[in-house]
This record gives sequence, structure tokens and C-alpha cells, in this order.
Amino acid sequence: MKQYDIVIIGGGPAGVACALSAKNTYPDKKIALIRKESKPMIPCGIPYTLHTLKEVDDNILPDNPLQAAKIDIINSEAVSRTDHKIILGNDEDIEFNKLVLAVGSRAVKPKIEGVDKNNVFLVRKNREYLNELKTKINEAKKIVILGGGYIGVEVTDELLKAGKDVTVVEMMDNLLPTMDDEFGIKLKEIIESNNGKVVTGKSIKKITGDKSVKGVELSDGSNIDCDLLIISCGYKPNVDLAERFDLVYEEDKGILVDDYLRTSDRDVFAIGDCAAKYDYFTGEFTNIMLASTAMAEGRLVGSNLYSIKVIRKYQGVLGTFSTKIGNTAFAVSGLTEKRAKEKGLEYTVGVAKAPDRHPGKLPGASELTVKLLFSTYSHNLLGAQISGGDSVGEMINMLSVMILNKMTDMDIDTLQIGTHPLLTTSPIAYPIINATVDAIKKWYKYQPV
Amino acid sequence: MKQYDIVIIGGGPAGVACALSAKNTYPDKKIALIRKESKPMIPCGIPYTLHTLKEVDDNILPDNPLQAAKIDIINSEAVSRTDHKIILGNDEDIEFNKLVLAVGSRAVKPKIEGVDKNNVFLVRKNREYLNELKTKINEAKKIVILGGGYIGVEVTDELLKAGKDVTVVEMMDNLLPTMDDEFGIKLKEIIESNNGKVVTGKSIKKITGDKSVKGVELSDGSNIDCDLLIISCGYKPNVDLAERFDLVYEEDKGILVDDYLRTSDRDVFAIGDCAAKYDYFTGEFTNIMLASTAMAEGRLVGSNLYSIKVIRKYQGVLGTFSTKIGNTAFAVSGLTEKRAKEKGLEYTVGVAKAPDRHPGKLPGASELTVKLLFSTYSHNLLGAQISGGDSVGEMINMLSVMILNKMTDMDIDTLQIGTHPLLTTSPIAYPIINATVDAIKKWYKYQPV
Repeated sequence: MKQYDIVIIGGGPAGVACALSAKNTYPDKKIALIRKESKPMIPCGIPYTLHTLKEVDDNILPDNPLQAAKIDIINSEAVSRTDHKIILGNDEDIEFNKLVLAVGSRAVKPKIEGVDKNNVFLVRKNREYLNELKTKINEAKKIVILGGGYIGVEVTDELLKAGKDVTVVEMMDNLLPTMDDEFGIKLKEIIESNNGKVVTGKSIKKITGDKSVKGVELSDGSNIDCDLLIISCGYKPNVDLAERFDLVYEEDKGILVDDYLRTSDRDVFAIGDCAAKYDYFTGEFTNIMLASTAMAEGRLVGSNLYSIKVIRKYQGVLGTFSTKIGNTAFAVSGLTEKRAKEKGLEYTVGVAKAPDRHPGKLPGASELTVKLLFSTYSHNLLGAQISGGDSVGEMINMLSVMILNKMTDMDIDTLQIGTHPLLTTSPIAYPIINATVDAIKKWYKYQPV
Repeated sequence: MKQYDIVIIGGGPAGVACALSAKNTYPDKKIALIRKESKPMIPCGIPYTLHTLKEVDDNILPDNPLQAAKIDIINSEAVSRTDHKIILGNDEDIEFNKLVLAVGSRAVKPKIEGVDKNNVFLVRKNREYLNELKTKINEAKKIVILGGGYIGVEVTDELLKAGKDVTVVEMMDNLLPTMDDEFGIKLKEIIESNNGKVVTGKSIKKITGDKSVKGVELSDGSNIDCDLLIISCGYKPNVDLAERFDLVYEEDKGILVDDYLRTSDRDVFAIGDCAAKYDYFTGEFTNIMLASTAMAEGRLVGSNLYSIKVIRKYQGVLGTFSTKIGNTAFAVSGLTEKRAKEKGLEYTVGVAKAPDRHPGKLPGASELTVKLLFSTYSHNLLGAQISGGDSVGEMINMLSVMILNKMTDMDIDTLQIGTHPLLTTSPIAYPIINATVDAIKKWYKYQPV
């Protein structure tokens, strides 16, 4: 029987981050990482394996950080456990002192008639499955994507770049339903200008064809022909091991954890997509699953395995993500108007637009749009949405830092930020500040002095 | 006699920001902006007028925000004042209730023998002067730049792009003396790889030639031939008006102001380069002059002219700036090692490198280097320096927000940030977090559990 101090199950970003954090904090501990996949994928890189990256293998999560930290990698599957012992698929067993589950999520297969036909794929994280999908894409001419969320539109963009005839179908009124409608509308224009077709407000009722998919029938009775259907309808926490390890979980929510990501067993932690998530603002369950949240959880748990070293209540999921479709990046952090309404938060909106270089005649300039939500009464920044050039990817992180620090409109209005002609908007037009000023003007009632 | 409630003198970013902020906060007030230049330049765009922008006029600060806010623009020069009245150069006078000086800084002309020869230029902000410089650059073959700070290296980069023979001479041991040496060394390599010549650790003793410059003699006795010399040796606060307006000032430091940017006269404010600046960490005088600091001051004063509405002590100059030389961006916020040593702050350094896309095989990836300074004892982030791709411009702003919010290494270690393959580093390699972990490992003493 192998013996380890710390065992992590799951080879994705959360597992790796936790293992490295544990090694930094407890350098004398023996650590193993057990994973099913011998070559795990970088999750957010998966859409780009379909065209931009030459090979699916260009998207393998590298092992060298784990190897450099002398963390043992065990390519196997955990089947069950008894107390502090895990039984692997090959009947080996491993003793542990502290256990972390980072077993991720799995793609939802919707209950649509014909979903098991050939050439119907989900967006799974498995290398062999993605290699098969890539082969089928190369053979396909007309492709339908079901689901216009982040992954659906990223896949759409990749397949358009590959010169395919692509239609994306989204049940909600607009693409990117996790952002406010104006961003989904802009995204639709971009996809259409790249010769993609967009169908919104309709679902797929039936997948037609004999053995292999030949088309889809939509909820309004219309049909779209296709020889390949890719379904991207969300992910669900993987709770199989929680069941077999006798931990408390809820099917749709994930493994239940406390503020320090501890499960119902004090020596077992759960992090990343498999662990239940709570909303940053309301504390309610949320289904937002992000590598960046998983990483933050992994680093926290890695430091706190034997005693609580990092005093920091788990703040809940802020939900910061970014993507790029065509040449335009989209990003969101915290609350959108849609979610603020749904959750009952009172808010004031501020919007500003500006070129991301100055003067705007400099080469490479593109327009940034920043939309901010502030709490009308308490003035804290609640959420941010941006579209624009590549700088959006780090601007949204700045906005996350602002929200997490409970910055107010006044804090942002008087902020010191750096600007440069070749890198950013001009100081006068800086849209995070100008959107803040726009919001202030809405609640401020002038009284003559 | 014209009468205004609020008069702002100076048409640069600080003046414009202050005027717009005042209009938002006091919509019924009559506001005038007096400026010498009828077509003011965007200050940080000035180096790019020399090559990248076709015309100097492509860098004019637009008037439309002022016009839209119905702020009167008066193209004239203030000469003197009596109490609440300003006398203009054309003998007109203007009555004011509140006055803001935003008269900027002027390029330092060093006392070097021969500095008044033809074809010796400073980097001034005046449109006509820049047009003349641009003409001389077009005619010149061999150009020497004196001063390897931000503006000096930006001008160097522009002239190399224009195909000129360029030598930059910096008195200190490395270029970009406001960053730590490793960044200046990297910058030297970039300039040299673009066929520029770099001389460090030497000053110019004498400017040779007859009427017109023919070369420079360095402090070690060596000579460099040139037919044009551009001097970029820093800027000094413009205190002429303070003298004539009878306000308290110090020649090298600027107009003295309190936390709310009020001068010795309670109805007169001073903002931007002309106002004395204090260091964010030590409160000591500092000579860092930045458009972004000026903007923050302008917005604050604009809101607080008649009563203090925005309760926020002036925090001092953090010093956030960014630039781009060749294809590499450089940026700094807060303390460098050099300054921390000089000022007597105890610190721990953390460094991390990572590609700014993930996987690194994605097109357009370039390497980011992040260097962070933390207070060893109190754990707050003190400073950040970065080099890398264009995303550096907004990353440094995120780091500014972190410093201003007094975030600690632990806060950053467990931060939720968003990442995307086409826009950012991978979550596992995210260098702001990994540099933080690197710093933690240096102070952390492991005790076996």
C-alpha cells in the first residue's frame, strides 16, 4: 500500500494549483495527484483545439510544474474509499492524511430526441474525444452548434475561421446570456459579419437523420440541415466520487463545502467545478464554474490543509470571465443588469465608450465599451461588462479587484491609473472612470450653492 | 469685464478634466477655461507625432468635450490678478469666484556648453515647436537623444522606426532609471536589436559645432557626431503664474497645496504638474509628474470647488506609468527596489514569468515578467514592475488598484481573476499571483505539523 500525506484527485487546473500550493506551504509532506487522463487538457483552451491550434495535443496541461515540485502523478481512477484509504481501479490502494477532490464537471447531454445519433458531439474535456471531434469537423460541411454561451460562441468562431457553414442556436433571446442583451446583440453582428448564422429564442426539438445526424428541427417547426451537431448546454458538477466516498452533496449543486472548502468529512476538501458554489453578492447557490475560481479555491485549500493559515472567508463566486470572438473581446465580472434584477439588488448603471489608444488615429485602436453597475444606495461597484480590444482581458481583472475591495463610485472617480498612447485609452476618456461619472450623474441631485 | 463662477487656467488634461468635473458637479455655474495654446497637444502622445502619427495635428487634444459641456474656451494668457480678477495679455479682465491653476510644467534646458546652437531641441509641448522639430528630424541623418527616461526612449524608438541613426545617452547606469536595472538592461537590448546605440553612465559635457550642432562631447572625453540633438532631461513645474498671482510655491517643487489641492489662497486651487506632489508611501516631495495623477487631481478639485463633497484625503502620487518600446511594453506602479532602498522601506521581492496567452502555442503570445515588492513585515503590496505584451498597460492599473487598496500577499494569493486563452496567461501561470507566491515563500518559515 502506498502512503501519502496529501492526495489530490483530479488533474485539472484546480488540482494542480492545490498541489503546488500544498507543496509550498508543507514542503516536507508527500503529495500525490491521482488523475484519470494521462494527458489532461487546459479546459479553456479546448475550443481552440478545433482550428487555431494545429493539434489537440498542443493544449495539454504541462506536467513540469508538478514534476519540479516532486509531486507524484498517478494515472489511475479512484473507485472507493474506506476511512483514510482510497482504492484505485487497478485494486491498488493509497493511504492519505488529507484528501482534496478536484474532479471537475461534465458536459450536460440534453434529453433531445436523436441525441445519440452519430456526429452529435458534446464539448468534453477528453483528449481522445476531442481528436475524434476534430476529425469529424474536418469532414463536415454544415455544422449546427446548440448553445450560444461562451463555449458555444467560441466553437462557432473557430469553425467559421475554418471556413465551415455554421449556425449557432440559442434558446434565450440573445447570445451570451450571462451578459446583458446589448453585448449579445453586438456578438450576433460579429458572427453574422463573419458569415455565421445565428438563431435565438428557439430550442432544438428533434435531431433528424438515420444513423447519423442530417439536421435539427427547431421549436418553431423550422429545420436546419447539418452533418455535424455540437452541443454546448452547460456543465454539471461531477459528484460520482462524492457518492462513492460517502460525502454530502446535492446532484445539481455539487459537493457541499464550508467557507474553507471542507466537505462533510473534515479531512476531505472539494475544490473547483465539483464543489458547490455560492454567489458573491447573495450567498445563494450559483452554477458559474470557472477555472479562475477553481484556482483561487485550490490555492486557499493548499495552504490550509493541516491548519487554517490563510484567514479568509470564502467570499463566494464573483464570476469573472472573458472571451474573444472575431477581433472583439467580451468580459464580465460580478452582476449584470439581468442578474441584479433577478436577485433584487438596487443599482445604477453607468456607460462609457472610448478608443483603446490615444490619439485614436494611432494604429491598432479599437473601441471599448464599459458598462458598470453600482449599488445606488451604498455606492459600491457591483458589476462590470466590457467589449473591445485585447486589453479587455486584464481590464476585467482590474474591475474584479475593485469589486472585491468594495470600491465606491467616489473611490474610482479619484483613482490614479496609468495611461499610454500605444497601450490604453487617454486619461480624459478612460472609460472605467467615465462610466463611473456617468453613474454618479444619475443619482446626484444638484442643489445650487 | 467678463464674469465667471469658475475659471481654469491651462488647457492640458488636468484643466480639461477639472472643467468637466466642475460642470458635472455644479451644472448652473458659468465656467471658462483660459489657455495659451489654441491647439493644445495630448502630452503623452507627443513622441508619436515624430513618426507614427502623420501630422503633429493628429495629436491635438479635442475640444468637443468642453464644447458639449458649454465651457467657454478663452485663447489668451493670464498675466496678473487682483483679488478675484484675472488680467489677460490683451488687457481684458475676467472676474472669478473660484480659480484653478493647471499650467503644467516645462522641459528643463540643462546648462551644457553649446545648448543654444541650432538643431538642439527640447521635447516641448508646443505645436509649432514640434512641427519645426519634425521638419528637422526629416532632414537629419544622425541624431543624439540626451536622456534615457520614458520620453527619451520613446523618442529614440520613434526615430529608429523612421530609419534614423540614433544614439541615446543616459547619465545613470541604465536606461529607464525609474524602473529597476533589469528592465533598463532589457530595454537596451531591444533598442540595440533595432539598430539604436545606447550610451549609459555618461553625460554630455559639451555640444560642439559652429552655428549648428555637429556633435557632442561626453564626460569621458569621447565624441559622437550628430546633426540633431534632442534633450529630454525632465520637466519642472511651471510656477510663473504662482509668482505673479502671489501664491506660495517653491521653485523646484511647485505651487504648495494641501490635501484638497488648495493653494495659500482658499479660492485658488492648483492641479497637475504645476502643483507640488507628495510621495504615496513617505509623504515626501516627489518630482513624478503624470497625466494620470493630474487627471485624478482635476476630477477631485472639480467636485470640491465650493464645498468638500468628495471626502478623500489626497493620497499622494503612487506613480503608475507604462510605455512601449519596439514590441515590448514596460510599466511600473508604486515602489521599485531602488526607491524602496533609498526611502528606507523594508521589502520582499517576488518575480514570475509566463506567456500572455495559453497554451503558449497560440499566435501572438509574448512573455510577461512581473516583479512585485511587498512590505516584509506588514505584507502590503508596495510596488509592481512589468514587461511584456500590450496587456501590460491595463495589468499595471490592476496592480495600482491593489496597492491603493492596501492588499496583502494573502489577498492576492486567493484572488479571483478571469483568464482566457486568447487574452491572458493561464490561470496556473498567472504571473501576478505567482510572483506573490514567490514572495511568500521567501518570508515563510515552515514548521513541520
